[in-house]
Amino acid sequence: MDANIAKLSSYLAVHAPGIRLRPHAKTHKSPDIARRQIDAGAIGVCCQTVGEVEVMAAAGITDILLSNQIASSGKARRLAAAAARGRVTVCVDNPAQVKLLSEAAQARGVILHVLVELDVGGGRCGVSSSEDALSLAAMVTGSPGLSFDGLQAYHGRAQHMRSPADRKAAIASACGLAEAAVQMIKQAGLPCHSVTGAGTGSFVVEAASGIYTELQCGSYVFMDADYARNEREESSDIPVFAQSLTVLTTVISAPAPGRAVCDAGLKAMSLDSGPPSLARHAGVDFAGSSDEHSKLNLHPGTALSAGDRLHLIPGHCDPTVAMHDWILAHDGRVVADVWPVARGW
Amino acid sequence: MDANIAKLSSYLAVHAPGIRLRPHAKTHKSPDIARRQIDAGAIGVCCQTVGEVEVMAAAGITDILLSNQIASSGKARRLAAAAARGRVTVCVDNPAQVKLLSEAAQARGVILHVLVELDVGGGRCGVSSSEDALSLAAMVTGSPGLSFDGLQAYHGRAQHMRSPADRKAAIASACGLAEAAVQMIKQAGLPCHSVTGAGTGSFVVEAASGIYTELQCGSYVFMDADYARNEREESSDIPVFAQSLTVLTTVISAPAPGRAVCDAGLKAMSLDSGPPSLARHAGVDFAGSSDEHSKLNLHPGTALSAGDRLHLIPGHCDPTVAMHDWILAHDGRVVADVWPVARGW
Repeated sequence: MDANIAKLSSYLAVHAPGIRLRPHAKTHKSPDIARRQIDAGAIGVCCQTVGEVEVMAAAGITDILLSNQIASSGKARRLAAAAARGRVTVCVDNPAQVKLLSEAAQARGVILHVLVELDVGGGRCGVSSSEDALSLAAMVTGSPGLSFDGLQAYHGRAQHMRSPADRKAAIASACGLAEAAVQMIKQAGLPCHSVTGAGTGSFVVEAASGIYTELQCGSYVFMDADYARNEREESSDIPVFAQSLTVLTTVISAPAPGRAVCDAGLKAMSLDSGPPSLARHAGVDFAGSSDEHSKLNLHPGTALSAGDRLHLIPGHCDPTVAMHDWILAHDGRVVADVWPVARGW
Repeated sequence: MDANIAKLSSYLAVHAPGIRLRPHAKTHKSPDIARRQIDAGAIGVCCQTVGEVEVMAAAGITDILLSNQIASSGKARRLAAAAARGRVTVCVDNPAQVKLLSEAAQARGVILHVLVELDVGGGRCGVSSSEDALSLAAMVTGSPGLSFDGLQAYHGRAQHMRSPADRKAAIASACGLAEAAVQMIKQAGLPCHSVTGAGTGSFVVEAASGIYTELQCGSYVFMDADYARNEREESSDIPVFAQSLTVLTTVISAPAPGRAVCDAGLKAMSLDSGPPSLARHAGVDFAGSSDEHSKLNLHPGTALSAGDRLHLIPGHCDPTVAMHDWILAHDGRVVADVWPVARGW
């Protein structure tokens, strides 16, 4: 994990020195890991929930982006409270959110920084046109307690497209949409300093775009089995991140030759992006999970006994980490630290 | 939920008065719900992890079956400690487990009750033959600190077979295997009081089998979207359980006509058995989740706004509950109670 953090920072220092790195903390939900990323040059973190913002702010992280929308006055007030400790930025894609945020910021006597989210291909949140982006930007600019900072332009779907060419084409399209919105906003006389987005699957493209000012890569710290299924870029400069997160499991049954059962199942790892891989264990194939079990098929010549331990590399790290209360940091030999996971809402 | 608990107990009282009900607590991980099941006639609970056994024992539940294997002396010692508070039963499918359990029971001065798990079609844990079942039963019988009680014969795969005929055929096969093992064990002069298994999808067949003495249904308390996809039996006597568990989520974005996004994603519900259903919300189709979002497609004439709330019925209740710290018990109007979930390991 430390090597992954160092690799991304070094790559950006050489190839994209003007671009800020703001890693996504939804991957790890851990202030301890966030601090390591900041120590390596990140300017702060992204969060995906208000609860994550509160945990990161309480841990002393002073520049936090909630790369998401809120829809209640209670959550707006919680963000304003976090903004009393440091810089807090939040996304909007409709006028009601702007109103909630402005009221909460005024009541607390703080400034909330605001990005207008533009849908650049993800088909999730975000306004669909430059006109709508400008209209919301103007509303934010005119709202007491708020500062309009720019655009959230994250293309989530592009991250797991398998071919580099597809990812490049998707991000090129995102860049075109973001650039058009920035120009329209600037032509209306509003500043638009930030364009933030990108993930572990595509950041090389955003970093070289001239449009994005900030990158939100999160998964690079751990990598997961699904990202490993992406085909790599061709250039040898581009960092190859290692899989650093595993779920440690114990074989509880070896009921027949060629079969074993371990005690990590659906409650210990998320299968939403496919099965875990068993890179460290040749001759063992993953054959499916139930709540507290996974079945393993063994190649001829491979044997496992009850009590044997295996490392599973989760198909998708983010929801897997959120199932656990602790991350054990080890060097392959000794547990060096135990990091709490801010897993609740 | 209360109606589901009452329905199963009533059905068994009429149709299978000699059969014990031992609901599976891995569904809810809640001593509060376990107590309601016991108040309605259940004799105790099943657990799937040692942690669940400890929580249920600490909450005063005095008859607990760990329907699973353990593979370490540490877990054997924890089970023996729980057995100092009440009756604890555990499954085995190999001699090493018997040795661990016997040592721990002797060291603690308790009796651990033991079932030999027989693989009756699930292809997961369990010995594969009557001969192996007898051999382990004899070893348990000869081990100080252990009491051999019978067979664990759960057919997990049968629960979600869609047609009643397929479920019936699968359980008929399980019954044949269990009966053969029981006969061989009894012919060897060992008592074999218990044959335990069954789930919400198949319990009617086990209850009528004359072979099973105990039923482990768990999902009936909540039901989930996947069980609702099972075709029902024909008989009108057979209870139809209601879906009583929902994930309450807020719409955070309605970015375009026909689309909305809510704030429950992969970290709030498990998609391993398919998407959630939206039975209470006509005109809304589930269109996929990411970590903290789900996309919703709206039929013509349906509109949602940021701040609207929706009830999602999880595809699979057990791993969904395990993501949450609390269950809010309500009557549709008022939150009547807040039940902690014993979600860790």
